[in-house]
This record gives sequence, C-alpha cells and structure tokens, in this order.
Amino acid sequence: MTQTNDIEVIIVGNELLKGERVDSHLSYLGRAVLPLGARIARAHVTADSVDEIARVLSGRIGETRTVLVTGGLGPTPDDVTRRGVAAGLGLELEFHEASWNAIQDFFASRGRQATQANRQQAEFPAGSRVLANGEGTAPGFEIESGGTTVFVLPGPPEELRRMFSSHVAPALSERFDRDPLRVDTFRTIGVGESTLFDLVGETLGALSAYDVSSLPSRGGVDILLTEKSSLSDRSLLDTESDAVAEALAGAIGTKFYERGERSLAEVVGSMLAEREETIAIAESLTGGWIGKLLTDVPGASAYVLSDVVAYSNAAKTDLLGVSAETLEKFGAVSEETCTEMAHGARNRAHAAFGLATTGVAGPTGGPPKKPVGLTFLGVSWDGGCNIKRQLFTGTRDDIRRRACQGVLWMLLDHLRKQ
Amino acid sequence: MTQTNDIEVIIVGNELLKGERVDSHLSYLGRAVLPLGARIARAHVTADSVDEIARVLSGRIGETRTVLVTGGLGPTPDDVTRRGVAAGLGLELEFHEASWNAIQDFFASRGRQATQANRQQAEFPAGSRVLANGEGTAPGFEIESGGTTVFVLPGPPEELRRMFSSHVAPALSERFDRDPLRVDTFRTIGVGESTLFDLVGETLGALSAYDVSSLPSRGGVDILLTEKSSLSDRSLLDTESDAVAEALAGAIGTKFYERGERSLAEVVGSMLAEREETIAIAESLTGGWIGKLLTDVPGASAYVLSDVVAYSNAAKTDLLGVSAETLEKFGAVSEETCTEMAHGARNRAHAAFGLATTGVAGPTGGPPKKPVGLTFLGVSWDGGCNIKRQLFTGTRDDIRRRACQGVLWMLLDHLRKQ
Repeated sequence: MTQTNDIEVIIVGNELLKGERVDSHLSYLGRAVLPLGARIARAHVTADSVDEIARVLSGRIGETRTVLVTGGLGPTPDDVTRRGVAAGLGLELEFHEASWNAIQDFFASRGRQATQANRQQAEFPAGSRVLANGEGTAPGFEIESGGTTVFVLPGPPEELRRMFSSHVAPALSERFDRDPLRVDTFRTIGVGESTLFDLVGETLGALSAYDVSSLPSRGGVDILLTEKSSLSDRSLLDTESDAVAEALAGAIGTKFYERGERSLAEVVGSMLAEREETIAIAESLTGGWIGKLLTDVPGASAYVLSDVVAYSNAAKTDLLGVSAETLEKFGAVSEETCTEMAHGARNRAHAAFGLATTGVAGPTGGPPKKPVGLTFLGVSWDGGCNIKRQLFTGTRDDIRRRACQGVLWMLLDHLRKQ
Repeated sequence: MTQTNDIEVIIVGNELLKGERVDSHLSYLGRAVLPLGARIARAHVTADSVDEIARVLSGRIGETRTVLVTGGLGPTPDDVTRRGVAAGLGLELEFHEASWNAIQDFFASRGRQATQANRQQAEFPAGSRVLANGEGTAPGFEIESGGTTVFVLPGPPEELRRMFSSHVAPALSERFDRDPLRVDTFRTIGVGESTLFDLVGETLGALSAYDVSSLPSRGGVDILLTEKSSLSDRSLLDTESDAVAEALAGAIGTKFYERGERSLAEVVGSMLAEREETIAIAESLTGGWIGKLLTDVPGASAYVLSDVVAYSNAAKTDLLGVSAETLEKFGAVSEETCTEMAHGARNRAHAAFGLATTGVAGPTGGPPKKPVGLTFLGVSWDGGCNIKRQLFTGTRDDIRRRACQGVLWMLLDHLRKQ
C-alpha cells in the first residue's frame, strides 16, 4: 500500500484520449489537495469503456488508499463510469430511489422534466454512499474496497469542484492529520530555463527544506519550491525562500516579476491600481489579447480606460491618430507607427500610459523585408516612450502571446524603475 | 497483449500532478495518431521520480505494443526520465558521444556554450536508437523491450510535435497497416446536452457505422461520430453522417453552426471573407476577447477593421460616439448603450457589421438593479440592429466567454438568414 496521503486520480473520457478536449481536472485536483497535506501521486486517463475503467481501477485497489474517479456520470449512452466502477469492484448496480427523486426535483425546479436517460444516474454500486450534487443532475458516490476508498465525481468542472469541496475535502482532511505543505512560486519572464539555472542554480542546489521544480512556458519560467514532506525544522522555510528571491532579483532584476501566483497582467494591474494611474492600449498583431489579459482581472475598470484594436491602416489613423504619412513612409509594422500608436492611445484616452503592438503574426509573410515574427512593442508616458524591436519565433499563437507578455513586462519594468 | 494499434502514453511531470500546469500533450497525441488508424488507449501522468516512471513503464511492457513517454529530458535536476526508463527496463545508461557533440553544436550555433547540466542529455538506456531533436537540446530515443516499443520524447510542445511527426509517425504508420479512421464533428451552441440528445437521440441511436460521443463545453456542445474500427461497409459513413447533419439542422437551425473542426470565430470569419464584408467591434465586459478570438484566425485582417474596448464611459463617448445622455439616463449596461456602441463601431470604421457587448462580468456587483451576469449583446448593420438581453451564470470567465460566443452566434445567425 502506498503512503496515506498519496491520492490517485482516474479521469474517464474518450474525448481526452482523442484529443477533442484538454483535461482541466488534474490541475484543479493537484492544487486542491495540497492544503490537505496530500498530493496526487499518479493519474490515469481511460476510455468511456466499462472494461477499461474496471481494469484500471481494480489494479489500484489495495495499492493506494484513496482513488478519485471523475467523469462519465451523465445521462448519455457513453456515460458508463457507474458500471465500470461496479465491475472493477465486483459489485452489482442498485437503483437508489431518493437520488431519482432528487434528479426529478432538479428538473422540475427548472420547469423541465427528467428523461428516462436520466434514470441511470440514480444507479450506484451496492454499498455506495451517495454524494448529492446540489446544482447538477449527476450524483457522485463513495465506496470502500480492500482498504481503498474510491470517490466518484461528475465531470463538468463546476460540479466536480463543488463536490470536491463539499464532500471529498472534509473526508480527506480528517484522514490526513498534518499541516498543509508550503508551496512558493517565483515567476520570471524573458530568461531561458537553462540560463536561469546557470544563474541561480547554486542557491537552488543548497536548499534543504524544499524540493525545486521549474516550469518553462511560453510566457516565461516559474520556479517552484515545495516543502519537503519530511521536513522537521520549519523555521528554514522563510530563510530559504527569501534567499531564492534575493538571488533571482540580483541575477535578473525585474524579469523576476512575481513572488506568488499572480499573472503578469495581475501584477501590472495592481501596480497601476495602487498608483491610481491609468492605461490605454493600441493593438495591431495582438488583436485584443492584451485587453483580454488585463480585463481577465476583476477590478480592471479602475485602470484600463480603452483598448483600440486597429487592424486596418484607416483605423490606425482614425482611432489612434497615426499619420497617413508615417504609414506610407515606414509601413504599419515599424518603430515609427508603433510610437504613434502608443502616444495616440494614451493621448486620446487621457491615460497615464499607452501600450502598443504592431507586427507580423503569420503564418504567411508580411510586407517585403518584414518577416513573420517581426514585432514592435511600445510603452508611452508623458514626456517619453520606449520602443523595442523583437523577432519572435514560433506559431501565430506563440508570436502573439510573446508580444502580449513582452509589452506588459516593458510597462512593469518602467513602473518599477520610476 | 493489447491490440496492435492501441498506444499508451506516459506523461512525466510533477507540475501536472501539482496543478501548476495543464497538460497539452495528450490532446495533441490523441489527434495525431487518428490518421494512422491508431488510438490512445490509455494515458498515465507520473511524477518526476525514477521509481515512479520505472514502476508505471515496467507495468506496461509486454502488455501494450507501443508506449510513448514524454517530458523530463531537460538539463535540470528534476529531469529524470532517462534514468526512470532505464530502471523500468532494467538497463544501464550509456553516454552517447555523437549526441553530446550535437548538443554542443546547438549551443555554439546560438553563440552560447553547453553547460555540464546539458551533458546528462546525451545519456540513453543501453540499446536505444537516438532520435535527433533538430531545434532543441533534448534528443529523444526509441527502445524495444518484451515486444513493446517505447518512444521517449521531450516535453516542450514544439519539440514533441516536431519529433512525433519526423520520427514516431513514420514508424507507426509502417506498423499499423490500415486506412485512417474517419471522425466527423458537429458543433452546436446554445442548446444543453440533454436537450440536444432528446431532440436528435433517435437519429444518433440508429447509427451503425459510428460510435457517438458528445462534448459539452462552455462554448456549446460538440457531437462526435467516430468510425467503428470493426466497420466493413464504409459506404454507410456518408449516409449516416449526412443523416445526423440533417437531423441537427432540422432540430436547432443555425445553432448547429459547423460540420467540421472550425471554431465559431473561424466560421463567422470565413463567411465574412466570402462575402467580402467587414466588421467592427465595440467591447465593454469582454475586454478585447472577441477581437482576440477573431484575430486568432490567420487572414482576419481581410474582414476585421477595428475593435474598440471602451471600458470607461469617456471612451464609449469619444471612441464610439455613445451619447453622454444615453449613458446618464440608461447606464453603461443597457440596451440603449449597447445599440449605440454597435452602430458607433460600425459607422466609425465604415464596416458592414458592428458587434457590441456590455454587461457586468463580476465577481462583485455592478450598478443597482444590474446583477452580475446581466449582459447586452448587439449586432448592427446598415438599416437595423438586433440587441439581446442575457443573464449569464458562472464565473467572470464563464460570463465573458458566453458573451463572446453569444454575439458571434448572433452575427452568424444574421448572415445565414440574409
């Protein structure tokens, strides 16, 4: 049997194996179990098949103490998780009258009627404890077998999350009797993973209280410190975490932009909010994505005044005041146009800062001598501006994402240095 | 041993189990193997641990013919996949001089120097065939054991994808000697999953050539037909697929918006491109997301003229011409303001159509009597407009996403009915 606080996850769904959908359950559950002092030790993705579910589950009974199964509890013919779990445990399904009544009530309260297809949602392996689903039709269940507790939860993310919080977390919390593990995140941008390890590897290698992992992504690299579960002297945690922060700030300056979980847009946004300053944006190749990232953050209306996506030259002139002469002489993808876009956005909105992007997102070529990936990023303020020329590589999506992150970092760098 | 064309995937990464990153490999691989007549039968996510990788892998040797392992080939201390695979197969690691030279050349060509940390990337289980990684530092490898072929590929998505195409796909294609399976996708919006099955369940239940699955998502529900691998009479494929398309069109009209893989933004975009018509957008609560979705599509500059994110009232007036009186009398979240935004965007950009969104995204409340989720969506054209009032539920992200999809569908509905 594995450690008490190791959890295994079985995610059921043909659509995940066929690449029709990206799984979001594992990342939710991985984070949700940390404060319980537990961890996801392993995960499996299986097909919507009674045999497959049964095979994977039965292999884990008696091996791991806690198994979470998600998905396949709906009313459609491919929802076979109830049958798969029953087969895996060698049990029969039993019809549960109270659940069927609850499902019918759920539909009635919405002025609709439960269908015969919904009736199978009230069947559970014999001996299950039914877990009510307040706002969905699919109840979950919990069942013990061979020293293993199996929780089975519905697949829709909102339902999974609510039911995990209300049913599973309290049950696990009782069982895992230890303090939550500490996880510290250090977020960086614009420095490659191996360069980063060359620069701060010595500090990271000297840590005794934490395990280190690094997460390269298109937006940058995160360094994660996870408290060792064997740690006895917890006073080391602060000292070592501070040492990492200091080493990063010394080595890469403002490219270490966050100690915590906030996105670059959140960090920039909260700096603007604190300073009571505002921003206006002018986007060309990024097409609204910078605005989207900034307004993902609740309360963004306090500092985002406007975002003008000026895809056509006419819009650059009419909405941002870029001069027709500049466009004619230097082209839309140029330092000069980027400068006028950044100033134009700021001036028209009476904002403290203007951001601008213009470039060639691809996949096919831009104007002559302007290759795919060529991008100008601009930050404008009262009395000056900073324009950077970049040649990004990758797909259309990569290039656009890098342009968004790049210009947000330029603003952050400017704000930190003021 | 499982079927020849069943593939298992082992994805290595603590960050996935801790919820620090969402996996994208499985969805890529699931789609990438379909044309080869293969399928991903099962997937496992394991920790960056020699023991764990070894345990999961050794359990699959002799059980399944093809295993793909991804991730953990980098230069950092937590990159232990080479050691884990070697341990799982009971083999030693051997240093491979030619790969070390290639890694050094890779760095030299970029004006940098390979570090000692990179040296471990040239070690492979004895007997491996090394798979070159043209544009990254981490080579992959292929090794046979107990009738199972194990391919090990690096984790960065671009590298995984390139190496799958250049090394793995050709090898599998030789082995799986059958025609690609057909997969038909039918995309819908604005109809719940169980209502959809009530409406077209009879048609779907009568299919003999396909397996049916449905994918509910925040954007809508997709119905997928996957050719049964046992199918002998392939002439049924067209007939049955057409019958499903007909049933959907009859039951839900333009809410069945795509037979294929295109997103709603792509469908709308290609209709505009065909008609040589243009669009201008005015966003408030969606903050640039509609622009982002439309400009995700290559070639969007042919029909997207501009997108004005007018978060402040002043921007609504200055950039879109919404009258101060309207804002004063009805508020920013109102049918009247939405109407003026849609017309204003269209008029200023001289576009054929204007789109507008305004609403309360939350999570905290909007103006009095304007609850979180209240949204107005507008489409404007020469001579008229259509404004819809909606009360969306869910998170800030859900509400904003639904508003984006809702207004794109309104335009599609208008275009289809013209």
